Amino acid sequence: MAETPIDFRTAPDRYRHWKLALENGVAYLTMDVNEDAGLRPGYKLKLNSYDLGVDIELADAVQRLRFEHPEIGAVVIRSQRDRIFCSGANINMLGLSTHDHKVNFCKFTNETRLAIEDASQHSDQTYICSINGIAAGGGYELALACEQILLADDGSSAGSLPELPLLAVLPGTGGLTRLVDKRLVRRDHADFFCTTAEGVRGKRARDWRLVDTLIPPSKLAEETKKIAEGVAAKSKRPKDTKGIALPPVERTIDGDTIRYAHVTVEIDREQRVARFRVNGPAAAPPADAAAIHAQGAGFWPLALARQFDDAMMHLRLNETEIGTWVLQSQGDAALVEAYDALLTKEQSHWLVREIVLYWKRTLKRLDVSSRSLIALVEPGSCFAGTLFELVLAADRSYMLDGVFEGSNLPAATVRLTPMNFGPYPMGNGLTRLGTRFLAEPDKIDELKDEIGKPIDAEAADELGLVTFTPDDIDWEDEVRLVLEERAGFSPDGLIGMEANLRFAGPETMETKIFARLSAWQNWIFQRPNATGPEGALKLYGTGKQSKYDRKRA
Amino acid sequence: MAETPIDFRTAPDRYRHWKLALENGVAYLTMDVNEDAGLRPGYKLKLNSYDLGVDIELADAVQRLRFEHPEIGAVVIRSQRDRIFCSGANINMLGLSTHDHKVNFCKFTNETRLAIEDASQHSDQTYICSINGIAAGGGYELALACEQILLADDGSSAGSLPELPLLAVLPGTGGLTRLVDKRLVRRDHADFFCTTAEGVRGKRARDWRLVDTLIPPSKLAEETKKIAEGVAAKSKRPKDTKGIALPPVERTIDGDTIRYAHVTVEIDREQRVARFRVNGPAAAPPADAAAIHAQGAGFWPLALARQFDDAMMHLRLNETEIGTWVLQSQGDAALVEAYDALLTKEQSHWLVREIVLYWKRTLKRLDVSSRSLIALVEPGSCFAGTLFELVLAADRSYMLDGVFEGSNLPAATVRLTPMNFGPYPMGNGLTRLGTRFLAEPDKIDELKDEIGKPIDAEAADELGLVTFTPDDIDWEDEVRLVLEERAGFSPDGLIGMEANLRFAGPETMETKIFARLSAWQNWIFQRPNATGPEGALKLYGTGKQSKYDRKRA
Repeated sequence: MAETPIDFRTAPDRYRHWKLALENGVAYLTMDVNEDAGLRPGYKLKLNSYDLGVDIELADAVQRLRFEHPEIGAVVIRSQRDRIFCSGANINMLGLSTHDHKVNFCKFTNETRLAIEDASQHSDQTYICSINGIAAGGGYELALACEQILLADDGSSAGSLPELPLLAVLPGTGGLTRLVDKRLVRRDHADFFCTTAEGVRGKRARDWRLVDTLIPPSKLAEETKKIAEGVAAKSKRPKDTKGIALPPVERTIDGDTIRYAHVTVEIDREQRVARFRVNGPAAAPPADAAAIHAQGAGFWPLALARQFDDAMMHLRLNETEIGTWVLQSQGDAALVEAYDALLTKEQSHWLVREIVLYWKRTLKRLDVSSRSLIALVEPGSCFAGTLFELVLAADRSYMLDGVFEGSNLPAATVRLTPMNFGPYPMGNGLTRLGTRFLAEPDKIDELKDEIGKPIDAEAADELGLVTFTPDDIDWEDEVRLVLEERAGFSPDGLIGMEANLRFAGPETMETKIFARLSAWQNWIFQRPNATGPEGALKLYGTGKQSKYDRKRA
Repeated sequence: MAETPIDFRTAPDRYRHWKLALENGVAYLTMDVNEDAGLRPGYKLKLNSYDLGVDIELADAVQRLRFEHPEIGAVVIRSQRDRIFCSGANINMLGLSTHDHKVNFCKFTNETRLAIEDASQHSDQTYICSINGIAAGGGYELALACEQILLADDGSSAGSLPELPLLAVLPGTGGLTRLVDKRLVRRDHADFFCTTAEGVRGKRARDWRLVDTLIPPSKLAEETKKIAEGVAAKSKRPKDTKGIALPPVERTIDGDTIRYAHVTVEIDREQRVARFRVNGPAAAPPADAAAIHAQGAGFWPLALARQFDDAMMHLRLNETEIGTWVLQSQGDAALVEAYDALLTKEQSHWLVREIVLYWKRTLKRLDVSSRSLIALVEPGSCFAGTLFELVLAADRSYMLDGVFEGSNLPAATVRLTPMNFGPYPMGNGLTRLGTRFLAEPDKIDELKDEIGKPIDAEAADELGLVTFTPDDIDWEDEVRLVLEERAGFSPDGLIGMEANLRFAGPETMETKIFARLSAWQNWIFQRPNATGPEGALKLYGTGKQSKYDRKRA
């Protein structure tokens, strides 16, 4: 583990780079990066450039606004700086970072942008970007994640993606994909835009669909407010209710064990494995939405999602050598099912909607984690409904057929609930069951008949719900073998393989961003033309010119 | 240019690795790789493994069967060797190859596999793979490109994708994508399969959808014949007509000029530019399909496609430092339009269908070429219909507004024909116009009103058909600027950018293969774990064990 692990937990009163203000149903998220408060030493966050620390605060704000502020119907992203909106990811930081940090940093920022779009599309909390100067690289990509882009029409404010001409890399946060797939910018215009370091401004920016609205600079603040308040007024979020507070996620790190209330992660450095043990609920669910609201962040599904999410983020950035995540659970499947029933019954309540959407995002974070995922379904486990999604998210699952000798725990079962049939789509837009059974679409209806029934290993195998079902004689060997095997393979090969096998079926902007765009960016991050000693990323700002290898691969 | 350029022109009587036999409407393509006949020195093509030379012959056979043999309705791919179907791409060849050769090799083999699928799907010439032993890596991927996979049920014949466990790379020819997206293999089964070097055989192979039919080894030949003849009998290809011969594509390479009858390519090594000059037809088209058949390979659209295709393949593999392809044309647009009208009128004729499908594949080869594509529309050009697709395929197009001073050529126009509205879909399934106007789908109907009209620069700009329309005062500077700019950028960055911008809209198996799978493979080919001095690809066969960097990116 890195000496000072990166901590993903923060709160508005601790933000160093953003200001959050609320007014008339609109939240104003104002970027004002503290150049001396980088996450690591060695670079200054000049000109509203960002590193992972800046994005952790943004992700926190996006998350909090959904839970803590049901009254907020629109969010404005803007800059505190004069003539600079945001100049993107900090280049010196990228130049100093290891390959794995760069890639994991880009993945997290991509997830934050997608969380912004998820808020606009599914929570009726619509993001609007107000650009008062240069929005370069990641700065313009942040704008692309918003539903409306307002640009000061002052002859100098501009969007730009200067990565290719200046740095020999790609816009790493979905920019290329969102240009042509979200904003439907014509490809030849996109080609010009992405190869023109100074970017595009004014009328051409609007005509080419790069921004939505041009506003005279003197009226930018006022018009932004008017537009945002208009959007907020149309939002169906409940304006007359209170949000719930999201206190810090409590955890202890004790050697190689990370403990949360509902999740324990044990790291085996020898095997390069992290074992996630998820605990089912300790008691029956509360009666209704009002009671859920009263429990707030303590409500088991929400508390678990926050803990699981934090654990994943921690492991991704701080434990990059731990290549396999083993997913286990323990608890009472009937209670898990009861919680799912409550989520289903109260699905129209704003807070329940937020909790379910958060589980959706948490499971998607698991899907795109560059770790091998192995689920173990053992006696005492509680893989039902929402928790069964962990098994479906795994690259492989092993379910013990029968009991362990000498144990009095009954044989494991798994259970389906309505939550497995819709609320948690993957990035490809299909449910995990839908993706699993692309070859047998009728199977989905058959599986609906199994909802609520305990399914033992033999039946789960028959239904295709798990991969292998060894008995207690073979269990230990089979599990040991797959973990040893995984630890022995090339991590790069596994990352590429998993990224290709996990998302069969339709592609979406999201899968394009994580699969194709990220893969190309990873490749380029590895090429001497970008990151070699004479690469553009290394030489940027030195006045020296890169000498490129000209061969076209 | 490489000292001995790779030549893509071959014919059955010169094949060194394949045997082609025809019987009862079925073609038998039998792989029997000559281990001493590798394309380059330094490796032996043992165990029916292949290099680019083997695949060039396969591509030639696939192409010839369509044009020369209308009577063939099914093609069997099989092996001459005992107990070995094909052991995939030759590993020593990969270990000795430069990065750019590996990547361009994989791209060509991918195009050949897609040409196989195109023949099955659109030409009613259906491919069947008959596996009599080990089909490993690229061997099994070749099987995946066929519509039916027959496997000897002998306890040892197996499909396998051992790339990841043995070589730390990915199956590079669409294997991962076809597993989950074509054969709809369940992801956990695919995970097991791709991590198990010895592969999967017998009943499990069939149950997991890895193969279609198990056949006792003693009956494999006979059953394959029966199945193939059954498929051939159902084919609607004309059994009572003669094909046309495909003589060698004639060309001369004279210094930096490559001359074909209808295409000239001039290479400017200083600018790193290749200028393709396509010539329109010299005379009016023949009257009908019978006359086209009589002209055979000399029919202008077919001759041009073969020449253009050969030029692209040559430049891709032999001129990797030439990063920009400029697309120009000269001739009579009315004649080009007349040829398009003939192709449209005779579209149901088998030969015309093949010619149009070949143009579709040729244009797709252009789409996935890792070169910047700049189209120049000048006075004297003939960018109409089929040839206008070259302009639409370009990353950017420049059209001169007006005439060149001192020239008596009239101002350039472009022209649409029905061929721009359907017959040439891109890999994403949309036409180039459909992809271009994703933001304005109604525009397609408006453009249909323009069919057959000469469209000048101002109108082309207004209609969104070209990118920029400088006048003669600015022309030279603008064109020079874009070519210089392109030559100055990092090739890697351009490759990644173009791969992301060219395919907006829906994704297909094909775009997944070229965009996401290839990108991951490129990344892995660049990683020390695979190709470093201690990487798996370098150490394969030495008995030494790779030491992997364990960080998960």
